[in-house]
Amino acid sequence: MIMDKYLERLKNGTLKLHALEKEVAAPEAIRIRRAFIEQETGVRLPKLGSFTMDPSTAVTRNIENMVGAVQVPVGVAGPLRVRGEYADGSYYVPLATTEGALVASVNRGCGAITRAGGADVRILRDGMTRAPVFSTRDILHARAVKEFVEGHREALAAAARETTSHGELVGAMALVTGTTVHVRLEFDTKDAMGMNMVTIAGERVAGLIEERTGAHLVALSGNFCTDKKPAAVNGILGRGRTVVAGVNLTDDLVREIFKTDGATLAEVNYRKNLIGSARAGSLGFNAQAANVIAALFIACGQDAAHVVEGSGTFTTVDRREGEVYVAVTVPALQLGTVGGGTGLETQRECLSLLGVAGGGDPPGAHAKGFAEIAAAAVLAGELSLLGALGAGHLARAHRALGRGKA
Amino acid sequence: MIMDKYLERLKNGTLKLHALEKEVAAPEAIRIRRAFIEQETGVRLPKLGSFTMDPSTAVTRNIENMVGAVQVPVGVAGPLRVRGEYADGSYYVPLATTEGALVASVNRGCGAITRAGGADVRILRDGMTRAPVFSTRDILHARAVKEFVEGHREALAAAARETTSHGELVGAMALVTGTTVHVRLEFDTKDAMGMNMVTIAGERVAGLIEERTGAHLVALSGNFCTDKKPAAVNGILGRGRTVVAGVNLTDDLVREIFKTDGATLAEVNYRKNLIGSARAGSLGFNAQAANVIAALFIACGQDAAHVVEGSGTFTTVDRREGEVYVAVTVPALQLGTVGGGTGLETQRECLSLLGVAGGGDPPGAHAKGFAEIAAAAVLAGELSLLGALGAGHLARAHRALGRGKA
Amino acid sequence: MIMDKYLERLKNGTLKLHALEKEVAAPEAIRIRRAFIEQETGVRLPKLGSFTMDPSTAVTRNIENMVGAVQVPVGVAGPLRVRGEYADGSYYVPLATTEGALVASVNRGCGAITRAGGADVRILRDGMTRAPVFSTRDILHARAVKEFVEGHREALAAAARETTSHGELVGAMALVTGTTVHVRLEFDTKDAMGMNMVTIAGERVAGLIEERTGAHLVALSGNFCTDKKPAAVNGILGRGRTVVAGVNLTDDLVREIFKTDGATLAEVNYRKNLIGSARAGSLGFNAQAANVIAALFIACGQDAAHVVEGSGTFTTVDRREGEVYVAVTVPALQLGTVGGGTGLETQRECLSLLGVAGGGDPPGAHAKGFAEIAAAAVLAGELSLLGALGAGHLARAHRALGRGKA
Amino acid sequence: MIMDKYLERLKNGTLKLHALEKEVAAPEAIRIRRAFIEQETGVRLPKLGSFTMDPSTAVTRNIENMVGAVQVPVGVAGPLRVRGEYADGSYYVPLATTEGALVASVNRGCGAITRAGGADVRILRDGMTRAPVFSTRDILHARAVKEFVEGHREALAAAARETTSHGELVGAMALVTGTTVHVRLEFDTKDAMGMNMVTIAGERVAGLIEERTGAHLVALSGNFCTDKKPAAVNGILGRGRTVVAGVNLTDDLVREIFKTDGATLAEVNYRKNLIGSARAGSLGFNAQAANVIAALFIACGQDAAHVVEGSGTFTTVDRREGEVYVAVTVPALQLGTVGGGTGLETQRECLSLLGVAGGGDPPGAHAKGFAEIAAAAVLAGELSLLGALGAGHLARAHRALGRGKA
Repeated sequence: MIMDKYLERLKNGTLKLHALEKEVAAPEAIRIRRAFIEQETGVRLPKLGSFTMDPSTAVTRNIENMVGAVQVPVGVAGPLRVRGEYADGSYYVPLATTEGALVASVNRGCGAITRAGGADVRILRDGMTRAPVFSTRDILHARAVKEFVEGHREALAAAARETTSHGELVGAMALVTGTTVHVRLEFDTKDAMGMNMVTIAGERVAGLIEERTGAHLVALSGNFCTDKKPAAVNGILGRGRTVVAGVNLTDDLVREIFKTDGATLAEVNYRKNLIGSARAGSLGFNAQAANVIAALFIACGQDAAHVVEGSGTFTTVDRREGEVYVAVTVPALQLGTVGGGTGLETQRECLSLLGVAGGGDPPGAHAKGFAEIAAAAVLAGELSLLGALGAGHLARAHRALGRGKA
Repeated sequence: MIMDKYLERLKNGTLKLHALEKEVAAPEAIRIRRAFIEQETGVRLPKLGSFTMDPSTAVTRNIENMVGAVQVPVGVAGPLRVRGEYADGSYYVPLATTEGALVASVNRGCGAITRAGGADVRILRDGMTRAPVFSTRDILHARAVKEFVEGHREALAAAARETTSHGELVGAMALVTGTTVHVRLEFDTKDAMGMNMVTIAGERVAGLIEERTGAHLVALSGNFCTDKKPAAVNGILGRGRTVVAGVNLTDDLVREIFKTDGATLAEVNYRKNLIGSARAGSLGFNAQAANVIAALFIACGQDAAHVVEGSGTFTTVDRREGEVYVAVTVPALQLGTVGGGTGLETQRECLSLLGVAGGGDPPGAHAKGFAEIAAAAVLAGELSLLGALGAGHLARAHRALGRGKA
Repeated sequence: MIMDKYLERLKNGTLKLHALEKEVAAPEAIRIRRAFIEQETGVRLPKLGSFTMDPSTAVTRNIENMVGAVQVPVGVAGPLRVRGEYADGSYYVPLATTEGALVASVNRGCGAITRAGGADVRILRDGMTRAPVFSTRDILHARAVKEFVEGHREALAAAARETTSHGELVGAMALVTGTTVHVRLEFDTKDAMGMNMVTIAGERVAGLIEERTGAHLVALSGNFCTDKKPAAVNGILGRGRTVVAGVNLTDDLVREIFKTDGATLAEVNYRKNLIGSARAGSLGFNAQAANVIAALFIACGQDAAHVVEGSGTFTTVDRREGEVYVAVTVPALQLGTVGGGTGLETQRECLSLLGVAGGGDPPGAHAKGFAEIAAAAVLAGELSLLGALGAGHLARAHRALGRGKA
Repeated sequence: MIMDKYLERLKNGTLKLHALEKEVAAPEAIRIRRAFIEQETGVRLPKLGSFTMDPSTAVTRNIENMVGAVQVPVGVAGPLRVRGEYADGSYYVPLATTEGALVASVNRGCGAITRAGGADVRILRDGMTRAPVFSTRDILHARAVKEFVEGHREALAAAARETTSHGELVGAMALVTGTTVHVRLEFDTKDAMGMNMVTIAGERVAGLIEERTGAHLVALSGNFCTDKKPAAVNGILGRGRTVVAGVNLTDDLVREIFKTDGATLAEVNYRKNLIGSARAGSLGFNAQAANVIAALFIACGQDAAHVVEGSGTFTTVDRREGEVYVAVTVPALQLGTVGGGTGLETQRECLSLLGVAGGGDPPGAHAKGFAEIAAAAVLAGELSLLGALGAGHLARAHRALGRGKA
């Protein structure tokens, strides 16, 4: 049998596990690899292997050493009325999660927003960042690097253009710390999340800086980007798309949907999202932004690790006469509608459901529309959880639906 | 047709979208719901519908308004030699991701660790938290609540025990802020991640506090927990499992595998993970802990939003004569081997691959073993990315495998 | 001349500048040193030299290379009605500052508090910390150190007692980060601020840990204390005295004194102290706690660098029907009534003015009383600045009194 | 007696305590006020009253309700060789402190720096900030305010110019959080610290924004400035003067002066200033920057509360072959040589000692020179404490000199 031959070669080390796709087609490679792993571990993986996705794209662009696929259930929340500049309409939001009660929670928030006439959403800023880090001889050299960067923006942009026709360098900030210089490069990446693009362009720009200043590139990513680590810099300067969404709810609507009142929503936000987060030394002042972003990102083929930045959301509740104005400010949403996992079949359908699959016209329009919907969905999640907490319903939901959140 | 009848009722509002499962079996409910969404949006979702998972458990425990499933490709990294107290052996680590190069990256790190004889791993602390927030009349009342909590630990534990036989209250800390009191309850949740358990037990404990002190429960979760928001409190006091993993690499091994040297690994860590994160106002001092945790969590049916806490990892590189000692300290790993998404078929297979599916013996042993493997995998990811950055290979990997990380 | 002889020796290096006190009495040493500095720099310093304090204590305990004294004007704010457990009465608070309008601002706040019947104040926690940092061989060794510390509290306390009869070890927490272990020791230091005591006791305890575990003491202070750096750990666990003060103000009183209303105070606090600080990535959620603490500390002979920890204060304004409840929570007030600068004549008079000079009866009572008054003074400053901002008076005060604050 | 008459009026409330200067000359007013306070409290304050400063300026510009002055001993550290652009020479640094061992510590660091040929120092950025906070109707309105600010920089600058001929608006950044907008205005304030100037100019600019956008000014300072609270924004964007200082020390010099070696300095910095601060959730990665800044600021008539921002310093130690390069990066030094307490006699002498009293030529040169010297002094303090910790001398110094730091 062919299978046995490959297993033998994997076993004796003449074939590397990751090299199977070089010899056989993707489905076959995955089957052999899974069989090998089953044999090595004595664990059977039939369900992982019973996927229906076409793995040929995946193995070249999305994964290595593929052995199968996990199936994550997808529910919809909606309709959600969004009034953005790029997304204006009613949406059913796909959420992939295994945490019971989450879809129901977001769904309730969508209902409130839609009943209230929709959420206003605006993009405040748009730019993906990468911050290579350099070492220098001394602080004089470090300052010279800073001055070079700040005085040669156009040269840096030209270097970046050599690597990509889609992205564009729109900012460069140099931060000196002793002999260390971080250069935070910012790019307009259109419909792409853009990490790939900015890394490749960043390498070229970093090369120019090395060449012109004599600084030494220590790492192409120096954590001042900041990628997938919680960081104040992303809250202050933004990363990816910075989006704000807000909705006005009458006290009557709050009572009807959330079985509580506007004053209570404001108090929960005050003592939990503001004081509680402040006391925890937190960089996120919200209730469950991460829940919504994680579920939406997994459904839509985004990089799930970017939920970290999303967790830095600020939720505010303004108490007004007879109503409350609730808003979320999401400083760093890294998402895209092309590249990454967006080309996989099930994920692409989720993007299609939102009308934002593939490149937009003009370029960037789809990613921005997606960002607007995402922010509105985060708002829905916030409203719902604040409401549930205010009404004392959280534990009850946990008992009924078997999970815990926030 | 039956389908048409339901679509009609959904359309005219006589049937709620989420109520379908009350009338028909899960597969049918999902099909009708999907058809309704397709009709409403004009978007076809055939791939989302072609899942092979059994949805009956999912619709009762994991998701609402289910319309299908996304398929996330799973690759394996390994073998990874782990020397923990609960996990001692070689593992193939399942990673579900759509970000090309990630599995390859972790795989390379696994190779280095295994070649070095394995990663030592230890659990430093274990306890899931929930922090209800109370309002009081004035600061005198607030202090009285604090004193009640601190003086009645056994009564609080007894109240918690009324709700669960699995979990156990092991700590209670009261924090006063003006009239606000946060009570951070900590539970041993054995093999469960435990959010569900602590929320329900927390409600009972909160009720006791209200009754005995006259404080008013504002919200069952007051963000001092802190759940799914980056927060210093989790780094300092821990949340879930706190785990540390370390490995010693000779310079020769570093050169052979990473094409760089130990001094460079130390310098990358110094200027990127330490100085870079410090300058960014970050709570995470690592390279890509979130990438590894996200992929592992999605594969294994964990709550993906908990990648937020995982991103608060600390990576350290000690330069020694002829070698480097690299370690990761993960202060807050929220994971479990029972409950949540761990019962879904594909996810359960991933846990089985690690030998930790279901409840352990003694209780908690599986979750702890899982935590140890997770920390070792994070270490593998750190090693690999520090190595790639040090060797200047990051952008090359991006060009080859079409993605960006760190 | 004697002077010339010393100047000659200082000039030719046969006498060190700091060694003058070994040869001549303090006043003479100071005069010679000042003359030398004047000669070296060509700058005359007559005013620095025209102090009236007795320098003999200062040169042995408070300062080296003394050349004179700066005179910082002291104003009083009050009477301030404090209702604490250790300070119960009306106080005139001495504030040493060169920033015009500060005393007036605090004074106005005192007026409001006193008119409202006084501020309730309570100490929530009391313990000075020092955290030596150790290196270990690997993570197994690190965990062993942690376990030793946590399992031998009494032995550590006994070691501490060998160095002091005033202080007492009341807590020890070990934090592992890879091969690094920070041990946060906490002491009851009675009426002393206690840094001196905890450093000396800490050295002994650290020696015991080294001896018993084989860990290497890298530094007696490892920044997890955290001393004079802003740090979340101090907010969460406290350092020195943790104090909370609150007062209820009727809308009428707010209008009369602050020319604004309670709703405005609440809104200023919401948008400035809560949202503004959250957005700034701040660890301090207050208006001007540092101003008050700095002025009070300079007047009373405290270590002025401890204003850093004081700046981590949380100010809250609860809007209620017809009134507002305003509170400050000061998590880390490092102060004492014995030791440090408290023995200098002018500083001691300032402490006497508050009735807390020297050791209290029982020991610790004076420092606690001082902490209560300090928190009430911070509350006065917060009230006043929130009021001024709400009424739009800040810039006017600046124009009139020539300074800027907040 | 005149005194009795005033005491009587103060007692019966017909004369306000702060109004004394309107009726009698400053010295007399201070005497009467002090007598009144003595009478009210029964505490004698003779030493506070025996100042030699001329109070007439103080009572109009620096203090209200003056009753006397505290005398803070001043020592000198030096000579300190500074190689800056505005300060190039050797300096004796005046430090006002009551904490024994501090001057000695800084002095030792000065010795090392001077022996090494001096510290290089450069100013990286210069701009004082004030961030008024506005409320808006909804997120659409909020974004419109942001767009107005960013699109009308010149109009804002023109408004600012109406209030001052010394300062100049050099930047304006608008940050939206739901309905809240913070506008961070940045000014070149020349030789002044500038808080006064920016507050008054900020009011005018805020008025323009209100008028043109319909936003409501909630507070002239919205904590995004951020003034006297620790905040990441100041580390990232800077506030006041951002300064970096560095020095290269040979291993021989380190051994001679600090009785330790370069590798140890690097390790202390790694485990204390980097890992320790990271673990503490700190915004300051240094050993004792606050100590040095506090003492220098009190001596030189600066606003002592600004030590808070100074505590956000980053200290780095690069290990090199046979030497170490040690640097401090001080992101936010708020200081000036005109205004505030700089006009008081003793404080002015301290500035004169550094050659920076009064306005510079060109304007700003004195404040910048002062900032350079300050950064070099901070570097001296860091070197010395890292050295003492590395050599295990900290507790010994405490025992000898009776205090504790770091």
